[in-house]
Amino acid sequence: MTKVGIIGATGYTGLELLRCLLYHPKAEVTIATSRQFAGQKVAVLFPFLKGYQDLTLSPLDLETVAKQTEVVFTALPHQVAMEVVSFFIKKGKKVIDLSADFRLKDPGVYETWYGPHKAKELLPLAIYGLPEIYSEKIRGATLVANPGCYPTTAILALAPFLSKGVIELNNIIIDAKSGVSGAGRGAKLATHFCEVNENMEAYKVCNHRHTPEIEQELTQLAGKVVKVTFVPHLIPISRGMFTTVYARLIKTITSETAHRLMTDYYKNKPFIEVLPPENVPKTIYVRGTNICQLGVKVDKKSSTIVIMAAIDNLAKGASTQAIQNMNLMLHFPEEMGLKTLPVFP
Amino acid sequence: MTKVGIIGATGYTGLELLRCLLYHPKAEVTIATSRQFAGQKVAVLFPFLKGYQDLTLSPLDLETVAKQTEVVFTALPHQVAMEVVSFFIKKGKKVIDLSADFRLKDPGVYETWYGPHKAKELLPLAIYGLPEIYSEKIRGATLVANPGCYPTTAILALAPFLSKGVIELNNIIIDAKSGVSGAGRGAKLATHFCEVNENMEAYKVCNHRHTPEIEQELTQLAGKVVKVTFVPHLIPISRGMFTTVYARLIKTITSETAHRLMTDYYKNKPFIEVLPPENVPKTIYVRGTNICQLGVKVDKKSSTIVIMAAIDNLAKGASTQAIQNMNLMLHFPEEMGLKTLPVFP
Amino acid sequence: MTKVGIIGATGYTGLELLRCLLYHPKAEVTIATSRQFAGQKVAVLFPFLKGYQDLTLSPLDLETVAKQTEVVFTALPHQVAMEVVSFFIKKGKKVIDLSADFRLKDPGVYETWYGPHKAKELLPLAIYGLPEIYSEKIRGATLVANPGCYPTTAILALAPFLSKGVIELNNIIIDAKSGVSGAGRGAKLATHFCEVNENMEAYKVCNHRHTPEIEQELTQLAGKVVKVTFVPHLIPISRGMFTTVYARLIKTITSETAHRLMTDYYKNKPFIEVLPPENVPKTIYVRGTNICQLGVKVDKKSSTIVIMAAIDNLAKGASTQAIQNMNLMLHFPEEMGLKTLPVFP
Amino acid sequence: MTKVGIIGATGYTGLELLRCLLYHPKAEVTIATSRQFAGQKVAVLFPFLKGYQDLTLSPLDLETVAKQTEVVFTALPHQVAMEVVSFFIKKGKKVIDLSADFRLKDPGVYETWYGPHKAKELLPLAIYGLPEIYSEKIRGATLVANPGCYPTTAILALAPFLSKGVIELNNIIIDAKSGVSGAGRGAKLATHFCEVNENMEAYKVCNHRHTPEIEQELTQLAGKVVKVTFVPHLIPISRGMFTTVYARLIKTITSETAHRLMTDYYKNKPFIEVLPPENVPKTIYVRGTNICQLGVKVDKKSSTIVIMAAIDNLAKGASTQAIQNMNLMLHFPEEMGLKTLPVFP
Repeated sequence: MTKVGIIGATGYTGLELLRCLLYHPKAEVTIATSRQFAGQKVAVLFPFLKGYQDLTLSPLDLETVAKQTEVVFTALPHQVAMEVVSFFIKKGKKVIDLSADFRLKDPGVYETWYGPHKAKELLPLAIYGLPEIYSEKIRGATLVANPGCYPTTAILALAPFLSKGVIELNNIIIDAKSGVSGAGRGAKLATHFCEVNENMEAYKVCNHRHTPEIEQELTQLAGKVVKVTFVPHLIPISRGMFTTVYARLIKTITSETAHRLMTDYYKNKPFIEVLPPENVPKTIYVRGTNICQLGVKVDKKSSTIVIMAAIDNLAKGASTQAIQNMNLMLHFPEEMGLKTLPVFP
Repeated sequence: MTKVGIIGATGYTGLELLRCLLYHPKAEVTIATSRQFAGQKVAVLFPFLKGYQDLTLSPLDLETVAKQTEVVFTALPHQVAMEVVSFFIKKGKKVIDLSADFRLKDPGVYETWYGPHKAKELLPLAIYGLPEIYSEKIRGATLVANPGCYPTTAILALAPFLSKGVIELNNIIIDAKSGVSGAGRGAKLATHFCEVNENMEAYKVCNHRHTPEIEQELTQLAGKVVKVTFVPHLIPISRGMFTTVYARLIKTITSETAHRLMTDYYKNKPFIEVLPPENVPKTIYVRGTNICQLGVKVDKKSSTIVIMAAIDNLAKGASTQAIQNMNLMLHFPEEMGLKTLPVFP
Repeated sequence: MTKVGIIGATGYTGLELLRCLLYHPKAEVTIATSRQFAGQKVAVLFPFLKGYQDLTLSPLDLETVAKQTEVVFTALPHQVAMEVVSFFIKKGKKVIDLSADFRLKDPGVYETWYGPHKAKELLPLAIYGLPEIYSEKIRGATLVANPGCYPTTAILALAPFLSKGVIELNNIIIDAKSGVSGAGRGAKLATHFCEVNENMEAYKVCNHRHTPEIEQELTQLAGKVVKVTFVPHLIPISRGMFTTVYARLIKTITSETAHRLMTDYYKNKPFIEVLPPENVPKTIYVRGTNICQLGVKVDKKSSTIVIMAAIDNLAKGASTQAIQNMNLMLHFPEEMGLKTLPVFP
Repeated sequence: MTKVGIIGATGYTGLELLRCLLYHPKAEVTIATSRQFAGQKVAVLFPFLKGYQDLTLSPLDLETVAKQTEVVFTALPHQVAMEVVSFFIKKGKKVIDLSADFRLKDPGVYETWYGPHKAKELLPLAIYGLPEIYSEKIRGATLVANPGCYPTTAILALAPFLSKGVIELNNIIIDAKSGVSGAGRGAKLATHFCEVNENMEAYKVCNHRHTPEIEQELTQLAGKVVKVTFVPHLIPISRGMFTTVYARLIKTITSETAHRLMTDYYKNKPFIEVLPPENVPKTIYVRGTNICQLGVKVDKKSSTIVIMAAIDNLAKGASTQAIQNMNLMLHFPEEMGLKTLPVFP
């Protein structure tokens, strides 16, 4: 069994890592840290994780973690993650970082959106952990920057069309709707049940930190600069992300052609479900799983292509994608430990 | 007191009419019909409407309704409404029709989307009941076609910019999110609690019946043909609609300019709240009211304007807008009976 | 217009007072305080309260409040309220206190559950503000202790049967279910959307602070000591409380007799709706209103009477009941400003 | 692999059987029937079940099912199930019936609550499928009557105390709260999202069909006639059941003693989690699993014991319990295929 550490285990992504690693056939969580709950037993604090009978939450002592692990997941806030990641990389560990700290290649862009970067030397090393696109590089990586939830949907939706060059690059709209767990487990008025329930609203309109990450990756795929208009919305569900992408076709194609193009692009990708043109993704069909459901429709009269992506923001949008990355890095089968079904309804 | 009839009183829009008319200072519901519940007392069937102590639901007998009313609200399915409306117009009644039957000027377009039209002769008479734009015509109308919920948001969002000619006409994206009550009160698998709860999905992608209605009105405002890409989504809340509109600016303006343009356009419109550029509409702030909250932001790097509109789909999107139309038709103050606050939270 | 002050205006009960007083025909909010938001305009901070165009939140300066008001609502945490209330009483103001500080007649009991009492001298003055039972005393009161939400339901459910002496006093079970707004607006993990949504749980089992309040009032009604088993539960809705009370009948009666007894007891009480035996209360029928719906059923085989009460915990369970008390204290009609309908659905 | 058939595979309990059997190591679904959807592929109709690539829904042809299966799950409405069950028993199949048709030993009681019984001869054969109590009998059974969801919680809560004789038998209150999926997947106004959402209500007060089932089993455990007062409530969550049971102690014991008694009773029962006295069950901790969480507290002043049980109504309350029964009947390990964690949050 490969020894795995989780740094920041009691936020929602940390808990999701614990949940999904419990029955992993080849990996075992040997240490999990929590500033707030250090010293408490996982199985007592979170009774649904009673499988971890012997796991007690540790304070973050880097040396101790290094001794007990081969792979480390860092589920820390951005800015906090970078130094921790740096330490583990130096110690020769494989690291999957769920923060934003190593996603942006250009430290200048990072500093515009997040603040000073104290581990720039690692940026060339970091592989962007979207396995449907970068699986080869991930297999050889020591540091994987696990993608943001919004970018995961936007990039998976657009990749087939950008790589085929069928859409205009300066006219891409990304309208994304997220469940509340994306805002984290910290207590805030903005996530108070009564402020969220029975409400819908947009936030950080054209100004969300995931914008440069999306643009970096789309630019990479297109081979030319791509700029997007990105508007995230908050929806009163716990888990789920539904992203609707609108782009202009350079030359009109049918919905069927678009569908075929997408199916071809994602052939043999076990976690991608391209739905037939008459169907539409549903977040309830992917909840708790590493699946991304994709749908596509062409609005002929305006030559606009509409691509829809549904994921679980905590799973494919964070923690199960991180495990998929770990599987690749350790040369395990890609689906190992991740073949779960959503609880429906 | 003006005598008012409600045809189809036990669907959600009919119930909302009953709720909002109970304390109207100058209108009184004298008859309410229901095929399914005829013979039952409103106050027994719907205890929250106990103010209607003497109102018993009637079967739909047109002559009886005509005798007892001056104004009729028809809250019937499309195709069913047209003949009923026709009868009352001939009887000299003022009619506010909440169906789609008289919204489309071109019977050919109607027949493409809804089926045969049996009252075409009334189409020239029908006024599109969006009071923020057509208040003068509504004041003189005998037949008002009350707008659909999606068109209400899309048109109110775009009107200031189309009428000023600042946006491109062939590149408008309307991404709309609706609460479940928009699907009506009939029992369907699609509105089963467990199928909707904790889920998000799109439906009728680029193929929703409100598309031609939106395009007709935007074309009217622009003075030139407008085509839109319209994608509605279903969100697990009971009431509320949040529509995000994306359009290309012909010449870049700032968010502040866009905001001012919008504020000017809706000056003295009591039910429109244009929010300052740093704020964003919330459906929870308009629930149960006739208010439409609007917000606007310009994404400079792509010259894209993002306009957001939040309404209550059953209120401003249907029944309170119908009462606003009635107020205008009867030369009552526009806000009469409609100055209510949302229940928050 | 009577000048009214709200101390603690930005919690949920304070906001509900603002909402319900805006259109009160004889009362006007002249000052509203908030530690957190002092200096900000109500209409900006809470756009749904835009009717308060000129009201800016004040810091809590007691003298200033005293100068500008005749009646004061104190919506402060227990322990904090008592000194503020004391000040206003000395200044000759009428006070409706929404905290627990003046509900318990016996300061020893108060101190067991809440902490030291620093205004014991006012306890004899304080009238328990349940208007359906104490309306005469409230009319003459200067200090009203507004009841807790759970006690409101439990007492209204049991009063008819305790006052008629038909139930055993040592065998009363109160199983109450509350919406989340009862926990207040402060940000806590316990009210985080994702921790509450799709969950049910009990809390403070047999140990909730409302227990002595319930027992005090039931004892008063019975004329003998009453002890209850009280278990509150948290339910994922924003507003609403559904309380199911179980008691042993001394002599079996039919559901119809129980219903008649209840109907008689609440004759002419405008905010009580006793439902026919075949019906059951629903919280959705009382949301946002001052109504308490009651239902009753006798389980003959065990001589157990089941009484159900549904209220809106923020309205009849707090703020609209406080306004009902104000109406009585000021000799206004009891229903003034409170004749509202729930928004359904 | 044991060949398994599911009769009635497209209701919620049938779907849950499909979900939980997909990865069962020793059982394989070879046929699944559906009146409504016969001829359609499971993986197309329910994309989250795409693992069933080759399974097409069949019409209910009894002979065909018999040929292709060794074990049959009948997930049919009561009254419909009995004849189907009868057929398969005659064919020598092992049957787990999820309907109520074989739960009540006394056909007279059955007929009072459900209608005529046409397979009375099988009643002596049928074993009540609550494995924590009847595991030995289930191991030898050919026909298992899978318990109702409410009875599962009520019996598991009370069994330790009834079997030890510490509570009074004529004074048991069962206040149960259920999620909406318990009402089935059929489209009804009562399960319409907007009628359920933001609402709580009781239903079938003292008159629910699960009452005789609960009383039969409690009587069995106590060795004397037990009668209960049972009130179910509907709560706006998709899955989950929280039952609060109140009983009178014959002799007062402490919460700790009660807890120990419960812990002892359920020693080595893998799906029962008895929580420490300071903790309380949560439905969110058992969602999608076969776990029953139990908590207990004694209210000393009234010698009342409060027992709380939380399950997933579709899982331990129906389908995973049915699989647990299958495991026992086929002498597989009891937990086989059922060691899953809830998706949290």
